[in-house]
Amino acid sequence: MFRSYKLSYVLFSIAVLLALSDAKYEPNWESLDSRPLPDWYDKAKIGIFIHWGVFSVPSLTSEWFWFDWFYPDHNPKLHSEIINYMSTNYKPHFTYQDFAKDFTAEFFNATEWTEIIEKSGAKYVVLTTKHHEGFALWPSKYCYSWNSVDVGPHRDIVGELANSIRNSKQKIHFGLYHSLYEWYNPLYVADRSGKFSTQFFVNNKLYPEMVELVETYRPEVFWSDGEAEAPSSYWKSEEFLSWLYNDSPVSDVVVVNDRWGTDTACKHGGFYSCADRYSPGSLQQHKWENAMTIDKNTWGYSRLSNLEDYLTTQELIDTVVQTVAFGGNILINIGPSKDGKITPIFQERLIDLGKWLNVNGEAIYGTEPWKICQNDTTTQTVWYTTKKGSTDIYAIMLRWPKDGLLHLSCPSIHLDKIYLLELRDIRVPWQVSEGVITLKLPQKSMVDLNWGWAIKIRNGFK
Amino acid sequence: MFRSYKLSYVLFSIAVLLALSDAKYEPNWESLDSRPLPDWYDKAKIGIFIHWGVFSVPSLTSEWFWFDWFYPDHNPKLHSEIINYMSTNYKPHFTYQDFAKDFTAEFFNATEWTEIIEKSGAKYVVLTTKHHEGFALWPSKYCYSWNSVDVGPHRDIVGELANSIRNSKQKIHFGLYHSLYEWYNPLYVADRSGKFSTQFFVNNKLYPEMVELVETYRPEVFWSDGEAEAPSSYWKSEEFLSWLYNDSPVSDVVVVNDRWGTDTACKHGGFYSCADRYSPGSLQQHKWENAMTIDKNTWGYSRLSNLEDYLTTQELIDTVVQTVAFGGNILINIGPSKDGKITPIFQERLIDLGKWLNVNGEAIYGTEPWKICQNDTTTQTVWYTTKKGSTDIYAIMLRWPKDGLLHLSCPSIHLDKIYLLELRDIRVPWQVSEGVITLKLPQKSMVDLNWGWAIKIRNGFK
Amino acid sequence: MFRSYKLSYVLFSIAVLLALSDAKYEPNWESLDSRPLPDWYDKAKIGIFIHWGVFSVPSLTSEWFWFDWFYPDHNPKLHSEIINYMSTNYKPHFTYQDFAKDFTAEFFNATEWTEIIEKSGAKYVVLTTKHHEGFALWPSKYCYSWNSVDVGPHRDIVGELANSIRNSKQKIHFGLYHSLYEWYNPLYVADRSGKFSTQFFVNNKLYPEMVELVETYRPEVFWSDGEAEAPSSYWKSEEFLSWLYNDSPVSDVVVVNDRWGTDTACKHGGFYSCADRYSPGSLQQHKWENAMTIDKNTWGYSRLSNLEDYLTTQELIDTVVQTVAFGGNILINIGPSKDGKITPIFQERLIDLGKWLNVNGEAIYGTEPWKICQNDTTTQTVWYTTKKGSTDIYAIMLRWPKDGLLHLSCPSIHLDKIYLLELRDIRVPWQVSEGVITLKLPQKSMVDLNWGWAIKIRNGFK
Amino acid sequence: MFRSYKLSYVLFSIAVLLALSDAKYEPNWESLDSRPLPDWYDKAKIGIFIHWGVFSVPSLTSEWFWFDWFYPDHNPKLHSEIINYMSTNYKPHFTYQDFAKDFTAEFFNATEWTEIIEKSGAKYVVLTTKHHEGFALWPSKYCYSWNSVDVGPHRDIVGELANSIRNSKQKIHFGLYHSLYEWYNPLYVADRSGKFSTQFFVNNKLYPEMVELVETYRPEVFWSDGEAEAPSSYWKSEEFLSWLYNDSPVSDVVVVNDRWGTDTACKHGGFYSCADRYSPGSLQQHKWENAMTIDKNTWGYSRLSNLEDYLTTQELIDTVVQTVAFGGNILINIGPSKDGKITPIFQERLIDLGKWLNVNGEAIYGTEPWKICQNDTTTQTVWYTTKKGSTDIYAIMLRWPKDGLLHLSCPSIHLDKIYLLELRDIRVPWQVSEGVITLKLPQKSMVDLNWGWAIKIRNGFK
Repeated sequence: MFRSYKLSYVLFSIAVLLALSDAKYEPNWESLDSRPLPDWYDKAKIGIFIHWGVFSVPSLTSEWFWFDWFYPDHNPKLHSEIINYMSTNYKPHFTYQDFAKDFTAEFFNATEWTEIIEKSGAKYVVLTTKHHEGFALWPSKYCYSWNSVDVGPHRDIVGELANSIRNSKQKIHFGLYHSLYEWYNPLYVADRSGKFSTQFFVNNKLYPEMVELVETYRPEVFWSDGEAEAPSSYWKSEEFLSWLYNDSPVSDVVVVNDRWGTDTACKHGGFYSCADRYSPGSLQQHKWENAMTIDKNTWGYSRLSNLEDYLTTQELIDTVVQTVAFGGNILINIGPSKDGKITPIFQERLIDLGKWLNVNGEAIYGTEPWKICQNDTTTQTVWYTTKKGSTDIYAIMLRWPKDGLLHLSCPSIHLDKIYLLELRDIRVPWQVSEGVITLKLPQKSMVDLNWGWAIKIRNGFK
Repeated sequence: MFRSYKLSYVLFSIAVLLALSDAKYEPNWESLDSRPLPDWYDKAKIGIFIHWGVFSVPSLTSEWFWFDWFYPDHNPKLHSEIINYMSTNYKPHFTYQDFAKDFTAEFFNATEWTEIIEKSGAKYVVLTTKHHEGFALWPSKYCYSWNSVDVGPHRDIVGELANSIRNSKQKIHFGLYHSLYEWYNPLYVADRSGKFSTQFFVNNKLYPEMVELVETYRPEVFWSDGEAEAPSSYWKSEEFLSWLYNDSPVSDVVVVNDRWGTDTACKHGGFYSCADRYSPGSLQQHKWENAMTIDKNTWGYSRLSNLEDYLTTQELIDTVVQTVAFGGNILINIGPSKDGKITPIFQERLIDLGKWLNVNGEAIYGTEPWKICQNDTTTQTVWYTTKKGSTDIYAIMLRWPKDGLLHLSCPSIHLDKIYLLELRDIRVPWQVSEGVITLKLPQKSMVDLNWGWAIKIRNGFK
Repeated sequence: MFRSYKLSYVLFSIAVLLALSDAKYEPNWESLDSRPLPDWYDKAKIGIFIHWGVFSVPSLTSEWFWFDWFYPDHNPKLHSEIINYMSTNYKPHFTYQDFAKDFTAEFFNATEWTEIIEKSGAKYVVLTTKHHEGFALWPSKYCYSWNSVDVGPHRDIVGELANSIRNSKQKIHFGLYHSLYEWYNPLYVADRSGKFSTQFFVNNKLYPEMVELVETYRPEVFWSDGEAEAPSSYWKSEEFLSWLYNDSPVSDVVVVNDRWGTDTACKHGGFYSCADRYSPGSLQQHKWENAMTIDKNTWGYSRLSNLEDYLTTQELIDTVVQTVAFGGNILINIGPSKDGKITPIFQERLIDLGKWLNVNGEAIYGTEPWKICQNDTTTQTVWYTTKKGSTDIYAIMLRWPKDGLLHLSCPSIHLDKIYLLELRDIRVPWQVSEGVITLKLPQKSMVDLNWGWAIKIRNGFK
Repeated sequence: MFRSYKLSYVLFSIAVLLALSDAKYEPNWESLDSRPLPDWYDKAKIGIFIHWGVFSVPSLTSEWFWFDWFYPDHNPKLHSEIINYMSTNYKPHFTYQDFAKDFTAEFFNATEWTEIIEKSGAKYVVLTTKHHEGFALWPSKYCYSWNSVDVGPHRDIVGELANSIRNSKQKIHFGLYHSLYEWYNPLYVADRSGKFSTQFFVNNKLYPEMVELVETYRPEVFWSDGEAEAPSSYWKSEEFLSWLYNDSPVSDVVVVNDRWGTDTACKHGGFYSCADRYSPGSLQQHKWENAMTIDKNTWGYSRLSNLEDYLTTQELIDTVVQTVAFGGNILINIGPSKDGKITPIFQERLIDLGKWLNVNGEAIYGTEPWKICQNDTTTQTVWYTTKKGSTDIYAIMLRWPKDGLLHLSCPSIHLDKIYLLELRDIRVPWQVSEGVITLKLPQKSMVDLNWGWAIKIRNGFK
């Protein structure tokens, strides 16, 4: 905020000149929604979401631990599990803030995280800078003594990861998640108890914090959350976005989502994230993102999760393929442990995905949905993508037929050439009968990879 | 702040009416200084100062532990002691905030503290609600996660003591110490680095916090500190005091000191506390207070202090007597331990003082300096007080002469009756010679108490 | 020991009678080695080894953490890693014993462990009751205040797991690992410094502890370790084993290994475990066991291990198959975390193995090596087993040939019928040419499982 | 034990020679009791007892904290206080052993302790090397992981204090307290549950530990305790004492007490300590000691103790004087805090005592009771001592008479000269009337000290 004031002054002078010739975004949704989404985002397709915070210390139910601890009605079963856990393992009157000392992060190595992300094939990363607990993973001026430098890791987590990701040779985009509300911040609680007729929290704390965050770490994604209790006017979201789009250091590249107030989800902002694990199941008018988790039950790390709680690599790739086929990006969430490790099971899923993308990525990155058909009508485990300006299509087959014959109804009969991306030198023969094309696949013992096989169909449009 | 805004609105309406008939204090020193000191304060004479906070955890050098830890130049010897202590006993990167978890306060019992204070004979108490470390001993909305309810004691220390002191049958006045500056609050640091051209800290944090404190706990003393780096205009002290004197719930009774900015010490405000352990050594035009410590080296508890570091009861009573003789109040500081105890050595000093005041309090409470002579010119260990409208004087003898003969030069020869407050039935005979009155004291084996003996001299004025 | 004395008394009376008719084992290796290995052990083939202890708290390098911390020469690289870790994350003078408080085990649930072991297909379990650190996972009378009930978990780990394993419907055998030496036990250190001319450690501590352990938990495997610094005479191993074989409550069923003194490994005792990860690579005269780890670098849990440090399921099954083909048992080690979880990556490996054994177990359990050929000479990724009294053999194919043709040199040409255990209804056709049999495998898309396929070859002996 | 075995061997050879000429003590009470008490002890009169251990961590009720925690019947009120304290301040399943980590001793400075003891005027010190909790304050081979080097202070407390005391210029004797029983040692519990028919605890642990202690630290007092549940035959006390008197390195100088078994208190051993705070109230046949506490309620430090729980200096000096007058030694107990400080209130009592002894010590050290009269029959606050071979007596007046006249009935009328030790130049006049001597004391304003005044009465025998 401090710097922005100075910056505003400079910009004001410039603005006078610019105003004559240049279009600027005004702080209202109509104007803000008119901004085109920066190009890189749709091409990237795959991002990694990282949920890390004090919730990674109890690491028991989910990142909503604190909320479920105090509110029986949100999830009565989790509530009683937490009550039981706390009374068994902690002394009375232990508070959530007391967990911070065990957020040790001693093994947190941003380079190691970056290498794992590189191996996964993801093109952007989004880190929780501050979740609903209000704990800042950077030395925020507005979270004195409740941030990762003052307590816990004693390190600037956001800064370390930002540097490392930016130094990656794979050009990974760096993004930040930020929660508007904080469950128990007394300033917020006061505003809420007055039905948001006051804005003490936003004025004294939230708005300057958001500006500080953007100016310090220049994110390419600003992923907003925690909007659900108040309208965007309370949060000053329009004001913030007009600053972000016009005057911030990332005005040209930043992408945002749609969680800016009770009135905005699936309606205003940048891409639509709508609800968690958003999966519309059909083509959409507006760019969207499926933010989902590898651990099915939680975004933050859970020490209690067993193998069955993690998506298998097959399930993960199924979801990636379906999401991309319907035009979405996928933001795949992992939860590091309190000591700073991406645990082996997460590593395995990400590295498997990366191996798969290394072979089949041509059918994913930079693609767009095939308008004609996203999902084959005969073999429903086959999904299609295409590329702008091309008549070729990609049929991504997620299960290998036992008899080696793949029946497809979507592609036209005007086929030119068909091959698997994994076996580019082997042409797949086909037959057509009653509008169904049957591909005679090579022997399965020929391929090395599992989980899915992208088949390039030249000139495949109907 | 929230409430005050609403209150201000109501009061504004009232104010229009009042303004026609009633004198109000304006937010400037001239007007504020015109307010008479509420009567109770001068009569009370003796207060207990309590320094308690996160500094009570390391409990090593003083309440300035954090500052000395990071600034070698403030006190190089203490600095290196702290560096050594930390590197020997704590893991690397341990922060000051990490001490909070050990501020357990498990034995803190406000009733027990109140009983000790009652026994001491003190008439008011001043508790550090927030020292320069910025840690609030109450659940402040403006110190989220850095206050005694969120971390450490998990209790509202200010509230518990306020209730207990107010319930004392001995009508003890309850006061609050509050530090304006916070060494490491990043908002304050930002203001300071800009030479106080901004007031982010004051506007976002300090001012609303002070209003919250007054409205919640209604202190009868507001003891300000930590003013020394910025002028009162930065701190908005005049604005605050005009609110305090006009509109706060304690407008009629509250007493303040003079630490409100670089321009105020010993000049503006209520009583003058000037410097720590202020002891002017002569009569003053303006009511003053000697804030001093029983542990000679520190206000906060120090586990390293040895017997020799504590004032003896004799030294304490010497200081009380001299302070009162020169018209001051004395604010005697104790530092409870992190677990909430006033340790036995402090108890002993306070209880000894109380026993002494129980016998000799008539010469202390409600007295005023004897204008003619505060300190006998012949026997310099004798100090005088008197009472408004009385010609009697009290000669407080701090050492018993070996030969039993007390020589005094100050009292006139028109004496009526002389006796020790401890031996009211025994008249002390006297002789006068060359302007010196010689009292023949009773045998010392007759008295039970030590440390000092108030001698009432009827009609003693010159 | 106490109970054993009473027991000895009872047994003495019985012994008089038995001595007339019954062979007893004498406390010398010749007699002890004459005892046949109880039958169940060779049939079981697959066991799970569990390393858990205070070393699971630092969980950094391995269960040798304490040793490497103090002895630079054992592994200089690990030593300096540990030195660096300790100086960065712990306060000075922190001792190994201080880790015990963080051995929380809050999620340790013996039933959950048992279920995972059941799913793995293992037939026995061996738990570290006391590793070289000397910390007992049961309330030993001889480890006062250095056991899992007095400090750390505050639970009888051995007892809880014993009960749960014994209640398994799958009849899993329960075994105990026990270290003879304790690196830093001062009694042991004293004996060693006297070149083992005294036996204070053995007499005062070790021997009664071993008796206590056997009498309390009745193990079916007593897996001894830590023998390497002293001869079996120092350890009183012969005396202990004769008691174990003759008079202990598990005399009929217990199996032991061969680590009983400098003079015993690969020579005396029960099965031979020789060195860690013992894999002789040929048929052996004596029953042996390959005790190996899924985490390639450590037996105890390491928080630093990455995906690449864990054996893949393929590597694990390769090792299982090779071990069994050469007549060994395999003891597969996992290291639970300090909070008591078998982490998901371990779960995945074990559950994968279990799925594989569920289909292919007929070729593993209860088998014996095929004397003629253990490893096919043409296709070296094929291994053989057979069953006593049968002319059928099992060829376990660990890689599926790209062209679907499997060439084998070992089986004779007098074949009756060939099929995969996973596809029992499909006969595999074969051709013989120049002593090489070529199997034409079914399409790989027909099978669901990976990692290996047991092929039953009826009447396959040469 | 190890060394003693070697030593025994050497000594055995010597013994053969000595046996011809020298009296040796046999391991039976008759022989042991015939040993004269080494001379230094009776002359010393005043010792300091130090209770320090893991009990200093909870520091709540007393050093019996652990016992009262688990046994409701020992002291139901304390029991419920402890239960309440633990459930309020610690997590469930917290064990007593878990306290050890907080026995930090970071301020323990043996030199500082020695200086305080020097100032007190005491001539010997007795430190608890191991209380009933079984925690050793030295690196005992027999308390692996339950001693002050392995956990807690990580220092050899006994060794550091021994060195410092021995280096004192004031020739202070160094002694050790040692508890025979350990409430919860499972070996002891086993012996006890068998009604002491076995001696596993004594043989495996206790006896070698006692030998180790004596050989390592060469104590001049071996103060035994915890004997009350078993006879001296169980404890092997006679055997130990014969070794101690004959063959140990302190055979000539060591003094022991009488707590060696159910059959010994007030009967066998060295001086009699009988019960705690033993104060027989009359002359005794046998040398005795009054082991008592400055904190009236506890031997270990209690954070809850208030001023009223500590003896005043007056009460302490009253007790010293009375004890010496009846021929006892006094062992004055202090309990340092867990961080290693002798707190200021203890310092004050000890330093006051030292100041008093500095003036009046001639009437205490090296004295013997006055056979004729120990306590004046007229003025009961006067006590007498004398010196061997002298006809002078010391009348120690504990209260100064209000009228300055001291009436004594015990001294004869054949007086030569009377003076206060504090005012040696002033002769005290006296009158005799009806067998009562009346001393006209100097004015009390002449003396500086309080608490008691030794009056030397030359030729004072009746």
